[in-house]
Amino acid sequence: MMKKYVFGIDVGGTTIKCGLFQTDGTLLEKWEIPTRTENDGDQILPDVAKTVLQKIEEKEIKKEEVAGVGIDLPGPVNEKGEISVAVNLNWGYKDIVGELGTALGGIPVQAANDANAAALGEMWAGGGRGTKNLIMVTLGTGVGGGIIIDGKIVAGAHGAGGEIGHACVDPAEKEACNCGNHGCLEQMASATGIVRLAKRYLADYSGKTLLNPERISAKSVYDALKAGDEAAAAIVEQVSQYLGNALAIFACVADPEVIVIGGGVSKAGQILIDGVKKYYQRDAFISCKDTPIVLAELANDAGIYGAAKLALDGAGSLEK
Amino acid sequence: MMKKYVFGIDVGGTTIKCGLFQTDGTLLEKWEIPTRTENDGDQILPDVAKTVLQKIEEKEIKKEEVAGVGIDLPGPVNEKGEISVAVNLNWGYKDIVGELGTALGGIPVQAANDANAAALGEMWAGGGRGTKNLIMVTLGTGVGGGIIIDGKIVAGAHGAGGEIGHACVDPAEKEACNCGNHGCLEQMASATGIVRLAKRYLADYSGKTLLNPERISAKSVYDALKAGDEAAAAIVEQVSQYLGNALAIFACVADPEVIVIGGGVSKAGQILIDGVKKYYQRDAFISCKDTPIVLAELANDAGIYGAAKLALDGAGSLEK
Repeated sequence: MMKKYVFGIDVGGTTIKCGLFQTDGTLLEKWEIPTRTENDGDQILPDVAKTVLQKIEEKEIKKEEVAGVGIDLPGPVNEKGEISVAVNLNWGYKDIVGELGTALGGIPVQAANDANAAALGEMWAGGGRGTKNLIMVTLGTGVGGGIIIDGKIVAGAHGAGGEIGHACVDPAEKEACNCGNHGCLEQMASATGIVRLAKRYLADYSGKTLLNPERISAKSVYDALKAGDEAAAAIVEQVSQYLGNALAIFACVADPEVIVIGGGVSKAGQILIDGVKKYYQRDAFISCKDTPIVLAELANDAGIYGAAKLALDGAGSLEK
Repeated sequence: MMKKYVFGIDVGGTTIKCGLFQTDGTLLEKWEIPTRTENDGDQILPDVAKTVLQKIEEKEIKKEEVAGVGIDLPGPVNEKGEISVAVNLNWGYKDIVGELGTALGGIPVQAANDANAAALGEMWAGGGRGTKNLIMVTLGTGVGGGIIIDGKIVAGAHGAGGEIGHACVDPAEKEACNCGNHGCLEQMASATGIVRLAKRYLADYSGKTLLNPERISAKSVYDALKAGDEAAAAIVEQVSQYLGNALAIFACVADPEVIVIGGGVSKAGQILIDGVKKYYQRDAFISCKDTPIVLAELANDAGIYGAAKLALDGAGSLEK
């Protein structure tokens, strides 16, 4: 029977976002359910199966019309669809594809890391539309990343493909990252990292500024920059240099068609891109200096799009 | 007819290395011809075709038994098998697969960058045997690199996949790299880069040392280190930190199963690996800290092995 539908499920620490798509990429409906992390999160996958099966029934969809269910999770997922740990879900090891597939009565399941799925989503329907090779960096509370080569997620040997937030961009950094290392990109270019750099800068700054060190946020830094604030400009210069240099190094590895920047911090818009581009172009290898750096377009929906695409690709490979 | 043979051709600036392999990877014979770079190198591909066809005749091989000819070249080769420029061959743009395929009377041709082919060779038959995801770094006159994901070369959108020698590891570096940028890994960890760092170090060093600034080489630095020389130890520490940190960053992108280090400098042996590993493990993301870092095993044959594997993989995809 013709496959008409595909589901994309994006599991976060508090909410599970769900999307029902046509196989051509049209988002038909999206909804959310809470993430029940109690009891080692043992209801999370059953809840996902339940909401998908309910939607199938509600829409009078035949199971055979469903190409698959893609699901992304906040943790390292390997190529077999197993996760080793997901702190925000209170999970240790779990066989996502196996457990969810069984609960769904045999509908094919594909699983990936959430940042990787977001990259795939942006490639399918967002800032990287029309490309097959992409680096995505998500500047949120942390820095996530996803690498797409030839249309496929680079999951990595330990599920750490695209873990670019933990690229060590400044080994001399004294403060430790949450991961235990020192000088991770996440400490410089995430929302919290920008605040950290801002506070450090302002502690030694005696000039006039719109920034209040007591109530600072990444948004306030970029807002002050837009208002012509000199201290904000100097802080953003630091952030841009770290991020632009790191992206130039990543491009020497993967040489993507496009670099997509998303996450809450990217709401600052083109001014963020312009800052990063300056240092990217300074440091990138000559063949890669003109690689476009663009804003993500799918915002919080990148995950469900990417998860759905993952399921579609998996269905494609099964049908071969 | 059963495909029994495959050729691997490694084109360098002075010599073309050629290998006749069985399709199981056994190297039957290897030989060299000179690289004729005069007249814009217009005889290079005809010479390759000629030597391959002669070998086929000499060995009484039927053309139908040849799975293909793989060729690697010192320049950026895209996925279609076109090269945009190869300075050492006096080449501008050339359609390698088209031209060589015609000259070979239709035997299938696959082409790749030389450093990428070396990485594939080490995966097939060298230090990365048994893996499908690998980063290779070649420390020679320059620093080359190759990234293998899921058994395939990452060629990149501009043929610059794996151009890790031009990762900008020290934007504050005053001297320029051959590529025009400042602070490339190649300026720190190639044979010439190590000499550069050594001369800089010795200029400010007043202690005793085995090293003679007038006659220094990467080999002499590592030899002095093995003899307990303090200045050599300090120089190698710098090299190791640059290279170890860079590999840790690359691993955040590709998360390989193994990192292979080859090229002339790697003849220093395990002491080089030990130095790099110290800083790699300091800076690598937690999931990747134990990724093995090993010496390449195929030396100058990595290219012909990789080129042959490329032809085999191409033949496989054609037969589908």
